[in-house]
Amino acid sequence: MTTTRDADTPLDDEFTPVSESIGRIIEAVDDGDQAALDQLLEPMHAADIADVIEQLSPARRRAFLSLYSGEIDGEILSEIDESIREEVVDLLPHEIVAEAVREMDNDDVVDLLEDLEETDQRALLAALDDSDRAAVEQSLTYPENSAGRLMQPDVVTAPEHWTVGDAIAFLRSEDWLPDQFYHVVLVDPRRHPTGYVTLGKILSSRPQMLLKDIAEDSFRTVKARQDEGDVAYIFNQYHLISAPVVDDHDRLVGIITIDDAMSVLDEEHEEDFLRMARVAEDSHVSDSAFATARQRLPWLVINLCTASISALVIAQFEDTLSALVILAALMPIVASTGGIAGTQSLAVAVRALATRELTAANARRVILRELMAGLLNGLGLAVILFAAGALLLGSPWIGAVLGMAMIANQIVAATGGVLVPLALSRLGLDPALASGTFVTTMTDVMGFFAFLGLASWMLL
Amino acid sequence: MTTTRDADTPLDDEFTPVSESIGRIIEAVDDGDQAALDQLLEPMHAADIADVIEQLSPARRRAFLSLYSGEIDGEILSEIDESIREEVVDLLPHEIVAEAVREMDNDDVVDLLEDLEETDQRALLAALDDSDRAAVEQSLTYPENSAGRLMQPDVVTAPEHWTVGDAIAFLRSEDWLPDQFYHVVLVDPRRHPTGYVTLGKILSSRPQMLLKDIAEDSFRTVKARQDEGDVAYIFNQYHLISAPVVDDHDRLVGIITIDDAMSVLDEEHEEDFLRMARVAEDSHVSDSAFATARQRLPWLVINLCTASISALVIAQFEDTLSALVILAALMPIVASTGGIAGTQSLAVAVRALATRELTAANARRVILRELMAGLLNGLGLAVILFAAGALLLGSPWIGAVLGMAMIANQIVAATGGVLVPLALSRLGLDPALASGTFVTTMTDVMGFFAFLGLASWMLL
Repeated sequence: MTTTRDADTPLDDEFTPVSESIGRIIEAVDDGDQAALDQLLEPMHAADIADVIEQLSPARRRAFLSLYSGEIDGEILSEIDESIREEVVDLLPHEIVAEAVREMDNDDVVDLLEDLEETDQRALLAALDDSDRAAVEQSLTYPENSAGRLMQPDVVTAPEHWTVGDAIAFLRSEDWLPDQFYHVVLVDPRRHPTGYVTLGKILSSRPQMLLKDIAEDSFRTVKARQDEGDVAYIFNQYHLISAPVVDDHDRLVGIITIDDAMSVLDEEHEEDFLRMARVAEDSHVSDSAFATARQRLPWLVINLCTASISALVIAQFEDTLSALVILAALMPIVASTGGIAGTQSLAVAVRALATRELTAANARRVILRELMAGLLNGLGLAVILFAAGALLLGSPWIGAVLGMAMIANQIVAATGGVLVPLALSRLGLDPALASGTFVTTMTDVMGFFAFLGLASWMLL
Repeated sequence: MTTTRDADTPLDDEFTPVSESIGRIIEAVDDGDQAALDQLLEPMHAADIADVIEQLSPARRRAFLSLYSGEIDGEILSEIDESIREEVVDLLPHEIVAEAVREMDNDDVVDLLEDLEETDQRALLAALDDSDRAAVEQSLTYPENSAGRLMQPDVVTAPEHWTVGDAIAFLRSEDWLPDQFYHVVLVDPRRHPTGYVTLGKILSSRPQMLLKDIAEDSFRTVKARQDEGDVAYIFNQYHLISAPVVDDHDRLVGIITIDDAMSVLDEEHEEDFLRMARVAEDSHVSDSAFATARQRLPWLVINLCTASISALVIAQFEDTLSALVILAALMPIVASTGGIAGTQSLAVAVRALATRELTAANARRVILRELMAGLLNGLGLAVILFAAGALLLGSPWIGAVLGMAMIANQIVAATGGVLVPLALSRLGLDPALASGTFVTTMTDVMGFFAFLGLASWMLL
C-alpha cells in the first residue's frame, strides 16, 4: 500500500501521519462508514495503517477489520506488531490472508508464520506456490531468532568469472528479482559465496571488467544458525548493507539486508529496556489489563521476597528503633539513594556488555573505576547529610551516621552495579534480566544494615 | 583498514574479534613491540581497532597511539567513540589526522569535527580540499543532531527525462562516485528531488526505459533541519534505504543512508536506556572515576531531596511507630513493591511514546488498562501479604493493613507510570529523563503514607 506519486506532487506532500487522522478514523469505524475509512487510509503508508490497527481497542479493531478487510494486503499484514498478529489473522477471511501472504517477500512470510498456531501455519503454507513454500519451510527449520529465520532466500548471485556485461545481461533477462537488492553475491560452482559486488560498482565499471576484480575488499558471511542479535551487532559494527547467509556446509542459503537487521537491533534494544524495568519483553500498550497484570506479577512477588529480607534486617534493630524512632524515618534515605546509584552503575555496565565494550580486558579497570566513583559520591553525599543532620535535625551525630552509612552503601551500589551483570553474563545469563533485583536487594540490605548498625553503635 | 580477501580464503576466516586478541595487544603495547602490534591489528576491522583503543586505559591508549599512529586512517578515526575522540585527535600528530580526514566521507568528517574544539576544527578544515571543505562547512551550519549534520553531501542525481542508458553512460564516466550508493535521485532543473530509482531497477531495465517510469512509488524526503531522531524513526518505520535531504527551499542538499540512520537509532535507544536509569547519555565505560562520579551525583542529590519527603511523611507517624516498632521493618515492603510496579508501567509507556504507539487516540484506554492492572496485582499481592501476616507474623490485622496499603500503592504506581510520562511529553520534555524520579517519589510517599496511616487507624 504505497502511494503513487508523480513528479508534479509537491515535496511536502508526505504520507499523512497517524496522529493527525486517528480521530477521524475512529469516527468512521464507529459510524460503519466504509467510504470515509477508505478515503482516510488511502494516503497512508502500510506501516502507519498497521499502527492504526494496533492503537484501536480490541472491539474497534474487529469493526475496523470487517470494514476494511478487502484492502488488507501483504504490506500491511507484515507491518502488524507480533502482539496482535494472531488476533488479526484470525479475524480476517482466509482468502484475504492467503492473498496477502502470496504477495509478501518470503522473509516476511516466515516472520508472520512463526507467530501463528500450527493449523493457521499449515493453511497459509498451502496458499503459497511450490517454490515459495519450499523456501519458507526451509527457513522455518532454523531455530527461532536465528539468521535463517531472518534471511530472504532469494539471492541474486553470479559466478566469479562473469564480466560486468554478463551480469547486466543476466539481470535484464530475469524477472524474479527481489524488490530490494544492493549486491550481487559471487559464488563458486558449489554455491559457496566468495565475495560480493555492489550494484554501484557494476553500474560504474566497463562491461568487460571481471566481477571478481570489482568485488568489495571486506566480505563477511553469517551462519544460518547464528542468533539474530549477533547479526544486528555485525551489521551495526561493520556497517554492512547486506550479508550472505550460509548453512553448516558454507553453502549460500539466503541474504539478510540491513533493514531487517535494523528491526532486530530495535527489538533487542526494546527487550533490554523492558527487561531492565522488569517487564516481559513482549509487553505492549495494546495488551489487555489482565495480560498486563499477569506479565508483571512475577517480578512483584519476587520483590516481596527480597523486601522481606530487608524487613528481617530492620527487625534485628527493634531495640534501636524503639529508642530512637526518628531513625525509622531516616533509614529509607540511605537505602533509596543506594538503589539509584546501583541502577546507574548497572545501566552503564549492561549497555557496555551489550555493545561488547566491557570485556575481560577492561573489567578490572571498570570495577575499580566504579569503586572510586562510589567512594567519591558517597563522600559528597555524606557531607550534605552531615550538614543536614547538624543544621536541620540538630544532631551532628545522626548526620555522621547517615553520612557513613551512605559512603558504605554508595561503594556497594557502584561496584555491585558492575559485578552482578558481569557475573550473570559470565554464567551465560542475560544481565539485563535479573541484575536489577540483585543490585537493589544488595543496596537495600546494605543501606538498612549500615545505617541501623552504625546508629546502634554510635547513638545509643 | 579492511582486509583484502581473495576467492581462495576459507569462509570462516572472518575478522579477528577484539576479545580474542586484546590480551596480546596489551602485552605488545606494554612491551613497546611495534611489529607485534602491527601483526595483531593487521587482520582486524577498523571498527574493532577503534574498540580496542576505547577499551585501553588512558595510559596504555597513549602508548598504543604513539606505537601505531602511522596506521591510524580515516576509517579507524571515524569509528572511534565520541567520548574519547577529542583525546585521540589531540594525541595523534597533526599530519596523521589531516591525512585521515582527507580520506573520510564528508558526513564522517562532519561527525568528527562537531565534537572538536574550534581550533582543532579549523586546522582540520584547512587540510581538506576546497570542495570538501565547502560541503563540510555547509553541513556544520545545520543544528547539532539534525539531518543536515548526518547527510552525505555527495548525491548521485539524474534529470527525470534521462533513460536507463543515459544513466549507465553517466555513471561509467564519473569518477567521484561515493563508495556506497543505492539509488539515483531524480531532480528537476531547479534541483528539487522528484523521485528515486534503485540501482537494481536500472540494472534490470532495458536501456531505452525512462528513469521516471521506473522510479519507486514511495518517495520521502527529509528536511535538513529535522531532528536526527525523527530521521531514524522514518527509516525504521518506512523501511527506507536512503532518503534525500532538502533545504528550506526544497532543494536537494544531500542524502542520508540507512547505515547512518541505524547508528542514530542505536544512539537514541542508548540515550533512553541510560536516561531511564538516571545516567547522563554520554556516560561511557572508558570515563574516569571522577567524570563518572560527577555525571551521577546530580540525580543522587535529587534523590536525597525526594527521599527526605518520604522521611517527613514517616516522621508524622512517630507515635504509631513507637507503639509498634515492627511497622518500621514492614513499611519498606509496600513502598519498594510500588516502586517496581511504577517502573514497569513507566517503561512500557516511555517505549510506546518513543515508538509513537501511545498517542492521544489510545491514551485514555492505556490509563484505564494500567489502573485495572494495578488493581489486579494489588489484590494478588494483598492476598499473599494477608496470608503472610496471619501465618508468619501471627497477626491477620497487620496482614490486612499491608494488603490494603499495597492495593492503594499498586494503583498509584501503575497509573502514575503512564500519567507522568504522558504529561512530560505533552510539555515537550523527554519522558525518559525525569519520569522515574516523579514516579518513585509518588510510590514511596504513597507506600509509607498508606501503610502507616492505615496502621494508625486500624492497629492502635
